[in-house]
Amino acid sequence: MPGDHAELRHLVARANNEVATAGLVVHAFGNASQVDRDEGVFAIKPSGIPCEEVSGKDIVVVALDDGEVVWGDNRPSSDTPTHRAIYNGMEDAGGVVHTHSRFATAWAQARTAIPCLGTTHADHFRGPVPVTRPLTDDEIAGDYEANTGRVILELYGPSGLDPDEAPGALVASHGPFSWAADATAAVRMAAAIEVMAELALHTMAIEPGTRPIEEALLGRHFSRKHGPLAYYGQP
Amino acid sequence: MPGDHAELRHLVARANNEVATAGLVVHAFGNASQVDRDEGVFAIKPSGIPCEEVSGKDIVVVALDDGEVVWGDNRPSSDTPTHRAIYNGMEDAGGVVHTHSRFATAWAQARTAIPCLGTTHADHFRGPVPVTRPLTDDEIAGDYEANTGRVILELYGPSGLDPDEAPGALVASHGPFSWAADATAAVRMAAAIEVMAELALHTMAIEPGTRPIEEALLGRHFSRKHGPLAYYGQP
Amino acid sequence: MPGDHAELRHLVARANNEVATAGLVVHAFGNASQVDRDEGVFAIKPSGIPCEEVSGKDIVVVALDDGEVVWGDNRPSSDTPTHRAIYNGMEDAGGVVHTHSRFATAWAQARTAIPCLGTTHADHFRGPVPVTRPLTDDEIAGDYEANTGRVILELYGPSGLDPDEAPGALVASHGPFSWAADATAAVRMAAAIEVMAELALHTMAIEPGTRPIEEALLGRHFSRKHGPLAYYGQP
Amino acid sequence: MPGDHAELRHLVARANNEVATAGLVVHAFGNASQVDRDEGVFAIKPSGIPCEEVSGKDIVVVALDDGEVVWGDNRPSSDTPTHRAIYNGMEDAGGVVHTHSRFATAWAQARTAIPCLGTTHADHFRGPVPVTRPLTDDEIAGDYEANTGRVILELYGPSGLDPDEAPGALVASHGPFSWAADATAAVRMAAAIEVMAELALHTMAIEPGTRPIEEALLGRHFSRKHGPLAYYGQP
Repeated sequence: MPGDHAELRHLVARANNEVATAGLVVHAFGNASQVDRDEGVFAIKPSGIPCEEVSGKDIVVVALDDGEVVWGDNRPSSDTPTHRAIYNGMEDAGGVVHTHSRFATAWAQARTAIPCLGTTHADHFRGPVPVTRPLTDDEIAGDYEANTGRVILELYGPSGLDPDEAPGALVASHGPFSWAADATAAVRMAAAIEVMAELALHTMAIEPGTRPIEEALLGRHFSRKHGPLAYYGQP
Repeated sequence: MPGDHAELRHLVARANNEVATAGLVVHAFGNASQVDRDEGVFAIKPSGIPCEEVSGKDIVVVALDDGEVVWGDNRPSSDTPTHRAIYNGMEDAGGVVHTHSRFATAWAQARTAIPCLGTTHADHFRGPVPVTRPLTDDEIAGDYEANTGRVILELYGPSGLDPDEAPGALVASHGPFSWAADATAAVRMAAAIEVMAELALHTMAIEPGTRPIEEALLGRHFSRKHGPLAYYGQP
Repeated sequence: MPGDHAELRHLVARANNEVATAGLVVHAFGNASQVDRDEGVFAIKPSGIPCEEVSGKDIVVVALDDGEVVWGDNRPSSDTPTHRAIYNGMEDAGGVVHTHSRFATAWAQARTAIPCLGTTHADHFRGPVPVTRPLTDDEIAGDYEANTGRVILELYGPSGLDPDEAPGALVASHGPFSWAADATAAVRMAAAIEVMAELALHTMAIEPGTRPIEEALLGRHFSRKHGPLAYYGQP
Repeated sequence: MPGDHAELRHLVARANNEVATAGLVVHAFGNASQVDRDEGVFAIKPSGIPCEEVSGKDIVVVALDDGEVVWGDNRPSSDTPTHRAIYNGMEDAGGVVHTHSRFATAWAQARTAIPCLGTTHADHFRGPVPVTRPLTDDEIAGDYEANTGRVILELYGPSGLDPDEAPGALVASHGPFSWAADATAAVRMAAAIEVMAELALHTMAIEPGTRPIEEALLGRHFSRKHGPLAYYGQP
């Protein structure tokens, strides 16, 4: 049926299922979305329905420009304005995932960026996983979820980070958001961030003075997998 | 059959099964109960039978007023007087769960309240998960399990905490108790407390100086899910 | 067939299987045995065969008095002399289990007794889980496994601990041994020690100054489950 | 078919599957290989294909002398030059495994050798699990993966470690490599290293001053399982 966005909803439902399968979801807290920029919409999990149970018919489709629901009877995730802010602020983001996964959320709660301490991390991020500033009381009292997107976007841009080199961020006192070409890839990035977060916690427990890896190693690993010089995986 | 409380026992058996499924039970230590205030009774797991094995016919029904068994051949959980104290002291408690889940029990053993370090926590508690004072030698030698309920109740009341805003507590050197509208919801709350406990442990390992979140963020998240301004989940 | 100890072997095989199921075994390191004092023998896992794969026909039966194999073609566990020393030194031990479970082994490697920091622990041990002294070079070069049993036994006896109140010990730099009325109960005790070890590690991470629980609480919990005043479980 | 190395590929596929089953693989990062020295080749996982999905037909066969692919259409693992360097530098290595397993990788990121703190470790390594020096910028910019093999080999040899007594090493800021008689045994060694890494982390958390075990205990345990005096397992 034209305009029902059935395929997009199907993909988003499956990505939400994968958030649960990957063990990233804690207590129904987690959601995945994917954008269709040609149609000017994105599809997202409904609020309060567990990731593992959601199917295509439950998914809500929202307009990119004004955030209005254009398909579905459910109320969309309460984090919908944050997803919308990311899509509108990062033109390459095709899918967005938010979780409360254990180790990444602990770093977010500590309001500490995850330092890049090894090649597992450097394969995904060209530097630390950044952490936002805390929201002000006014930002919390106002349009809270949209402002959550805003403090993420503050980290990026011409004078900040590159969303392709830091494809995720920790919202202070909250948890991680990640993005990629589509929802499924964003789930994989969320899983990678969780691994990086666990590795970094254990590393600092072993040797609290561990320093981030050198630029040469960071660049080598990141570019093994990204950009024109990539040689990882099958051609 | 009138007076057999079959439905209540069934619900309580299932909630005890869920305690096991949720990984909250350690070595058969854990029990769930639910009250029927109209009938003046609550149903609870029998002592020493694993949560995963219990079914409706094993459940014991106990009178709220005098603690006598009114249905069932089994001996009720040794923690029954604690559950009864909570039901009698907190009029909104419809279900009570006790576990020895790993991280929450560690905080209880450390006799330290779980500080509210992030939004995962603030979605459930409007402040820390409190910890009771230790019982005195006399309280331990006397009606120990009822006194365990008493030290929990000491934390609440007009000059203390609100049971709806702090729907669970750690008994010092023992473990967590939680409550909610029914037994199944109390199991979910027990699982949330375990997550909050794990997140807080990891957070303090990353940054020992982490402070509880600000009142604005605490109130916003708690009221997203509770009370007249809630906007989480489906209407 | 008389003298084939088929039932004993069957029970011991099943207990070894349970060691694996309970997640206590690390890399085939773990073994369970059970004694038949009337027959003057005990049955034990063969060396090098994984706990999860062993069945009754693989089990080896060994004489209590001289340690000779009296049934079976397999070589018994290399830890057999340790089991034999425990049976000969502790008349109430009916089953013995040895594991390299993660948290208990860490305490053993730290050569630190597991302090009794809460009621989960006090339900099983009336005090800390003790740790042996290190073996001397001569004891290691000599009859190593029998000497391992000897340093365990040194902790017990008239001027030491009571094996019923401390039904397990950590061998320094090695791992835990536990005992109970039979092999299956000894597996449950090994699982309890692992939980106590994990809880204690997390507790000390939260509050390094945590002190062992008071004598009143220790005695109350231990005697809820053990001895003439026990009131836990079904009559 | 002559020259298709079907059996070798089958064994290597199964070993890669076991890397996944053993929980050693994080995010498709992991690979196992096995050498056929008579044929002058080794077989290895293709790049970017998950360990759990790989089967014999996907495996790539590479020449030991020049590293050229001699069988298969896939691109071999990007870590192939590291495997090749190990085979060429250690004549007893029959299988090699690389993982990013959580605890071993944390020690690698901390650039800290895993000290031998107990018998679980001494059963596998006669001393610490060594860590390489960091690669220089030139080594990273040049033939990076071959140089990774080179810094491993620097640790061994006449004036260094014995590959049979230290059958694995941590590459600084990267992760563990291990070797054994064949690929399956190398997977088991990778799993053992992960256990040793976890035990050592917990041990140091309990008692930061824990010292490596004495030479007598180290030698006794290592030789229980290795060399002419071994008496562990079935004859």
